[in-house]
Amino acid sequence: MTELSTSFHGLRVDLGRLAERIATLAAIGGTGTAVTRLGLSTEEQAARELVGGWLVARGAALHRDPAANLLARLGPSGGAPAVLIGSHLDTVPDGGRFDGALGVVCAVEAIEALCDAGLTFRRAVEVVAWADEEGARFGIGLFGSAAAFGCLPPGAAERTDVNGVSIARALQALGERGDPTAARFMAPAGAYLELHIEQGPRLERAGQAVGLVSEIVGIFHGRVRVEGRGDHAGTTSMETRRDALAGAAAMVLAVEAAGRARPGVVATVGELAVTPGAKNVVPSAATFSLDLRSGDAAHLEELIHAIRDAIRVIALERGLRAGVDVLSTVPVTPLDASLRDLLRRAALAEGLVAPVLQSGAGHDALNAQRAGVPSAMLFVRSTGGSHTPREDCLVADAAVGALVLARALRELAC
Amino acid sequence: MTELSTSFHGLRVDLGRLAERIATLAAIGGTGTAVTRLGLSTEEQAARELVGGWLVARGAALHRDPAANLLARLGPSGGAPAVLIGSHLDTVPDGGRFDGALGVVCAVEAIEALCDAGLTFRRAVEVVAWADEEGARFGIGLFGSAAAFGCLPPGAAERTDVNGVSIARALQALGERGDPTAARFMAPAGAYLELHIEQGPRLERAGQAVGLVSEIVGIFHGRVRVEGRGDHAGTTSMETRRDALAGAAAMVLAVEAAGRARPGVVATVGELAVTPGAKNVVPSAATFSLDLRSGDAAHLEELIHAIRDAIRVIALERGLRAGVDVLSTVPVTPLDASLRDLLRRAALAEGLVAPVLQSGAGHDALNAQRAGVPSAMLFVRSTGGSHTPREDCLVADAAVGALVLARALRELAC
Repeated sequence: MTELSTSFHGLRVDLGRLAERIATLAAIGGTGTAVTRLGLSTEEQAARELVGGWLVARGAALHRDPAANLLARLGPSGGAPAVLIGSHLDTVPDGGRFDGALGVVCAVEAIEALCDAGLTFRRAVEVVAWADEEGARFGIGLFGSAAAFGCLPPGAAERTDVNGVSIARALQALGERGDPTAARFMAPAGAYLELHIEQGPRLERAGQAVGLVSEIVGIFHGRVRVEGRGDHAGTTSMETRRDALAGAAAMVLAVEAAGRARPGVVATVGELAVTPGAKNVVPSAATFSLDLRSGDAAHLEELIHAIRDAIRVIALERGLRAGVDVLSTVPVTPLDASLRDLLRRAALAEGLVAPVLQSGAGHDALNAQRAGVPSAMLFVRSTGGSHTPREDCLVADAAVGALVLARALRELAC
Repeated sequence: MTELSTSFHGLRVDLGRLAERIATLAAIGGTGTAVTRLGLSTEEQAARELVGGWLVARGAALHRDPAANLLARLGPSGGAPAVLIGSHLDTVPDGGRFDGALGVVCAVEAIEALCDAGLTFRRAVEVVAWADEEGARFGIGLFGSAAAFGCLPPGAAERTDVNGVSIARALQALGERGDPTAARFMAPAGAYLELHIEQGPRLERAGQAVGLVSEIVGIFHGRVRVEGRGDHAGTTSMETRRDALAGAAAMVLAVEAAGRARPGVVATVGELAVTPGAKNVVPSAATFSLDLRSGDAAHLEELIHAIRDAIRVIALERGLRAGVDVLSTVPVTPLDASLRDLLRRAALAEGLVAPVLQSGAGHDALNAQRAGVPSAMLFVRSTGGSHTPREDCLVADAAVGALVLARALRELAC
C-alpha cells in the first residue's frame, strides 16, 4: 500500500487507498465510464457488502436494517447517542462514480485515519450507507433515510419500478421482510455528518477544495397532464388541431422562462411522454415532470404559482385540458449551525477557508435534520455536474475532505 | 339476412351485411371502442382469413403473396390485365374501425352486388387487402403495396418492431419465407380502385357522401436529434444549462408555426423522447419525429427548408447540436384522371355530385399509380378524424360508396 499523507498533525489519509476504493465501487454496476447502481438492486447490495468488509476489518459490528440501510457500529454500545457519518451507494441510471459513493468512502477513510492514529471511540460512531437515495428506480428520493427517520410517504412499499417490481419485493429479494417502515431508527443519534461532491461549479470557481452547507433547498416535484385530441397528421388542418405535445412544448418553455426570470431558483422538465406517440398522429396527450427548487421558501412558492398560471393560460389558449399533480414537496431545510461551525474549524485547521453554500440537491441529511438529529454537510469540489458519467473529483480534494471529517469526528467521538 | 337495397338500377348492396362485417372486423384486435390490428400481426392475419372466406363463397381463388398481401381473384385467368380493388386491414395502435377495413368491406360488397345482379366478369378482378399499410409497427408505411410494386426501401426485411422482431421474422411467423421483395406483382394490372374514409371534415362540411381524390400529398418523414448536456436539476443554474428538451420544445413550436404560416401544408411532431428521462436530470438529448405534407411540391420544399432553418437557429442560440435525418420522402402523386372520371360518372348515376379532394394521407393507391397502374380513390364521408377510436362513418354512406364502386367495376370488368 502506498501510504501518502496529506496531514502532518497526527491524522493521515491514504490517497492510493481512496482512489482504489472509488474505482472498485465504480466497477460495481459500471459500464466503461458510466455507473448504474440502482436503489435496492443487487449492485447496490454488492457495494454495501464491499464497504461492510472494509469496516469489519476495523472492528465494526454490521447491521442491515429492514430498508436495506447499512449501519456499521464502532465504539461503545451504550453511552451518549451515536454519531452517524456516511452517505449513499446507489446511483441514477448512467450516473457517475462520486455522487454518494465518495461520502461513504471518505467516512470509512476518516475511521481508518482515527484508528491509524491510535485513537479510540469514547462515543459510538455509526458509519451509514443509506439505501436508494436517488429514488431513480421507485420514485422515492432519500428512501433509506426516510425509512430510518419515519417519514416515508404512505404506501411506499407498494411503489413499483418500470418492471412492476415493488419496493417490498425488491427488499425481499435482498433477504429483508419487505416492510421498510420497520427500519425506523430506534437508537437516538446525536449528530449526522455527510460528505458529498458539490455537484455544481461554485467551489471550483472560488478555488476552494471544500465547502459547508447552510441549507438544503425546498423541492417541488409535480407531474403535468395535458390532454388534447388525437387526429390524423395528414388530414387534420393546422387550424383545427388540439395538439397536446405542442401545448406541452409551450409549457416546457414557460417553465424554463419562469426559472430564468427568478434569481436563486431552478426549474426543470426532465421527463416528457407523448400519447399515442406515432409520427403520423397528432398527439392526444402528453405528460411531463416538474422539478422546482429554491433555498428561499417564498421564492419557491412564487415560482410554483407562476408556472401553474402559465400552464392554465396555455391550455386555455390552445383548447387543451391540463392539470398539475403534486408528487412531493420538501420545505427548505437549514442544517445545524453548531456542527457546521465544527466542520468550519476542522477545515481551517487544514488551512482551508470553506465557503458556505446552499445545497440545490436533496440529501439524506435533510431527513436526519428534520427528524431532530443535528446534521451538517461537507461539500467537496467537483466538476462535470453530477447524475452523469462526466462528474469528477480530484482524489486530493476527496482526501482533504476525509481529513476534515476525521478531525470533526475526533472532536465528537474520540 | 335483411336485404336492404340502396339502388333501384339493378345493383343492390346490403346495409345490414355491411354493418355486420364492419363490426366483425372491428372485434379482431378490438378492445371495447379502440382497434389495434398491427401490420403482420396475428390479428391482421385473422382479418385476412375472414375476408378471404367471404370471397371464396363467391368463387374467388385466394392467394397470399410473400409480403402477406391477400389477393382474391374472380373472373377469367387470362385476357386483359386485372382490375385491382381493395384497401388494407391493419390499424395504428388504438385505431378505429373504418380506416382501411371499410375499403376492403366495400370492395367485397361491390363484388356481392355484381354477383347478385347475375353479372359475370369478362376481365379478371383481384380484391386486395394490402398488408401493413399504416407502418405503425415497423416504420414502413404502405408496406404491402410497396412490396408488390417493387418499391420497398433497401433492407426492409431487417426493420424491427419495438420488441426487436424483424419484418422477416414476422412474415415467417405467418408462414411466409420472410423475403417481402419476392411479393413483386408479376401479373400486369390494368387499374386499381380504392375506397377509403376521408379522415377529414371536408365532405361533411360540403354535405356530400362521397368524394374523388385528385392527388395524394407529398410527405416528408424525418427524425430530429437534439444534443445538449445532462446536468443535475438541483445544482445547475438556469444560465449554464444546455437543456436538450427545452431546445426540442422550441423546435416543436417552430414546426407548428411553420405549418400554420403556410396554406395547404400540415406539419406534425407525433413522437418525442427524452434522454435520460429522469425528473431530476436536465435532459442531455431529445429526439422527435417530423411529418410534413403538402399537395404542392414547391410548398412542401419551402416548408422543409423553413423548419430546417428554424432548428439550426434554435440549436445555435441554445448551445445545442441538432441534426435532421430524412427517413422517407414521397413526392406529390396525382391519381389517374380517366378512372377518376369513371368514378365521377358512377357517383352521378347514384345522384351524387362528388367533390374532388386532395388526400392528405398516403394510401396504397400511391404505390400502384407510381408503378404505372392507373389508380383512383373514392373517399367516403367520415367524422372524428382517423387513427383514433372516434373515427366514424354512416353505414348509409359506406353503402353508397360500395354502390359507386360496383358501378365502376361493372363498367371496367363485366
